[in-house]
Amino acid sequence: MNELLSPAAPEVDARGAAGVLPELPGRLTDPLRHELIAFRRDLHMHPELGNQEFRTTTAIKTRLERAGLRPRVLAMGTGLICDIHPEPGPGADQQAVDQQAAGKSAAVPQAAGPAHAAPPMLALRADIDALPIPDTKEVPYRSTVPGRAHACGHDVHTTVVLGTGLVLAELAKAGALPRPVRLLFQPAEEVLPGGAADAVDCGVLDGVGSILAVHCDPRVDAGRIGLRAGPITSACDRLEVVLSGAGGHTARPHLTTDLVTAAAKLATEVPALLARRADARSGLSLTWGRIESGHAPNVIPQRAELSGTLRCLNLPTWREAPDLVHEAVDEVATLHRAKCELTYVRGVPPVVNEPSATALLREAMAARSGAASVETTEQSLGGEDFSWYLEHVPGAMARLGVRPVGDRRSRDLHQGDFDADESAITTGVELFTAAALLHRS
Amino acid sequence: MNELLSPAAPEVDARGAAGVLPELPGRLTDPLRHELIAFRRDLHMHPELGNQEFRTTTAIKTRLERAGLRPRVLAMGTGLICDIHPEPGPGADQQAVDQQAAGKSAAVPQAAGPAHAAPPMLALRADIDALPIPDTKEVPYRSTVPGRAHACGHDVHTTVVLGTGLVLAELAKAGALPRPVRLLFQPAEEVLPGGAADAVDCGVLDGVGSILAVHCDPRVDAGRIGLRAGPITSACDRLEVVLSGAGGHTARPHLTTDLVTAAAKLATEVPALLARRADARSGLSLTWGRIESGHAPNVIPQRAELSGTLRCLNLPTWREAPDLVHEAVDEVATLHRAKCELTYVRGVPPVVNEPSATALLREAMAARSGAASVETTEQSLGGEDFSWYLEHVPGAMARLGVRPVGDRRSRDLHQGDFDADESAITTGVELFTAAALLHRS
Repeated sequence: MNELLSPAAPEVDARGAAGVLPELPGRLTDPLRHELIAFRRDLHMHPELGNQEFRTTTAIKTRLERAGLRPRVLAMGTGLICDIHPEPGPGADQQAVDQQAAGKSAAVPQAAGPAHAAPPMLALRADIDALPIPDTKEVPYRSTVPGRAHACGHDVHTTVVLGTGLVLAELAKAGALPRPVRLLFQPAEEVLPGGAADAVDCGVLDGVGSILAVHCDPRVDAGRIGLRAGPITSACDRLEVVLSGAGGHTARPHLTTDLVTAAAKLATEVPALLARRADARSGLSLTWGRIESGHAPNVIPQRAELSGTLRCLNLPTWREAPDLVHEAVDEVATLHRAKCELTYVRGVPPVVNEPSATALLREAMAARSGAASVETTEQSLGGEDFSWYLEHVPGAMARLGVRPVGDRRSRDLHQGDFDADESAITTGVELFTAAALLHRS
Repeated sequence: MNELLSPAAPEVDARGAAGVLPELPGRLTDPLRHELIAFRRDLHMHPELGNQEFRTTTAIKTRLERAGLRPRVLAMGTGLICDIHPEPGPGADQQAVDQQAAGKSAAVPQAAGPAHAAPPMLALRADIDALPIPDTKEVPYRSTVPGRAHACGHDVHTTVVLGTGLVLAELAKAGALPRPVRLLFQPAEEVLPGGAADAVDCGVLDGVGSILAVHCDPRVDAGRIGLRAGPITSACDRLEVVLSGAGGHTARPHLTTDLVTAAAKLATEVPALLARRADARSGLSLTWGRIESGHAPNVIPQRAELSGTLRCLNLPTWREAPDLVHEAVDEVATLHRAKCELTYVRGVPPVVNEPSATALLREAMAARSGAASVETTEQSLGGEDFSWYLEHVPGAMARLGVRPVGDRRSRDLHQGDFDADESAITTGVELFTAAALLHRS
């Protein structure tokens, strides 16, 4: 423990619940903090898109193995899991060691599959993929890959779970980890319906009793988290529309289908129609991320493509959405005499934070930084494939503050200049470490 | 002449003016017809964009040199001119030969520059570039270059002028060419403001007294031409709009600029505003050929681009157009909170057919195929950089029928499946040959 953790922190906020909880290990040491920041910056400089995170997977695997752990790459080729089991510790007697061994709670990872003999694991989930947008920041650790950026903070999430793993491995060796923990590094969160569903198919939840995650939030100060029991994100689907027409000469749109106009009308009219046809309380929002048609200023193109996301707060409207969209897209395309093909990809339901998992995060954060460091957050229209795990096991996601204290710029996730206050890595590691130690079931 | 031309045609339409004109040479021989079709198909299979027509230039040059002519590549690197001068013919006496030589009207091309001693040349102009669109036809001579097609018939125009050159060279050797002719193969007609302006700067009009051209018209039957004195095409400018915003997450358009929506609104609203702000009689028409923004369905992009053409029938509105467009683009971009940069490229004024050059084309066509083969055409909203030549010398452009007789499909220029009835090549060569022989000044 000397390597990674400093002595127990005397500065734990008196308003926190620390007094009534088992003693928590201290703050991260400076060397570990610096190593984690360097690790995050390395990922940041080498962003990889969903299902292509080979370098990222290798980097995580190598570091975990160096800590004596045995990570396993998922069958899908990227992403990995790594189990950390309680150990008797250097002072335990031989009987305790034998008992642990009989319960298979050894440092050697178990094979995936239901582990009836062992207590259920607490999974700590990170997503590891980046976005297909250019990094527009001017920092030394700016993306080195054109058109690719970690603009959604997955590099931070990954580093938080990695750092937690390193700390928990030390705690386990010292006999201070009460229950088993699974680190879960999931690929392709940005690709709807999301890598989580594939990861579940790979068996990542086998033996897991509950699951936690954090997501960077640039509207919460570093050192704090946002939390909410119940729905915290929204349903999110993906749309791809292809329009086609005969093409022609821009001198004579009347002889063909004016396809750029048709695509533009579709981009503006379909959201307008949905706003009248869906219950406004659902917050249904269709927003386009891509429109593309044509190659020359004087040629009416034959093909146009649009991509976007449809989001809503509640399940009834989510169920209704595909029909509403199909109808509106067909109507607008027909009006503009374009042939139309709509691919409606069901994405993710809302992430609904389970009360006791939410309470665990709240308790852990309060123990580390005081109850005042937890703020109540709103349900966002963001989609998160973390919801697929919650279809199988209870869990909760916290919003990890990454806004530098005092910074009032409104810089959003998915913006090319998104960045995180790196002190959030320490906050995240300490939060997850405390949660692993406080976790009871 | 035996190689390229068959004996004088007895079938010249009696309604034509043939009876009162100098005897015209006969129809093209089958071997020449087949060679020209093969030449056109070779160009069709190897389309090249404006100012990149190196292979095309070489193909034309090689064939003209094989006919004993001396083509000269333009200083801009692609495109060429080739002068054909009257010769005394095999039966002329030595004195006539000496006179011709003194007048520099020899088969050896003159250096570019004013040729005060020689009669002014009749220029026959072809454009040689292709379009950046895919060829969607299923024919053996389909484009072999992905995303490139001769969808505007420039391969036909080029072959017509080449074929005319071959015939006129034979006629000159036989002493049957009365006045000098310049073949002009111009690059980059599709690139506004067009290669014609550059070609003029290269001196292609030096020594030229008048100029003729044909343009394929899929709404005129093969074997016929469309003609009109006065304006036959329209003014055409090019627009490039770049919109920018902060980008962001498609869950939160309210925190940024919803750039796809802004671009789509600009695409639909600017033409709508122009339709109210410009005199409707001007036929002002802004049509977009390209819209492009974003790379991912769930990321609001930071940049959007639109390209299009603005066309109008008359000069007063053309003069007004840049201000109208700037104003409307700024207003719509501002409304949608997007930053905006408009590049307005002045293109071409209308092609205004000069009466006597128009009469020459009419007379030539009537002599070859009868007066009924000439139909009156309308002013189109197409733009043609042929207009730049007409700023310097009088001239006229005919619409060359390329619709297979009996075909009622409405297939337009700039459509990916555009094709021409190849008998139009013969019609064009015979038209230009007759015009060169009938040309008087």
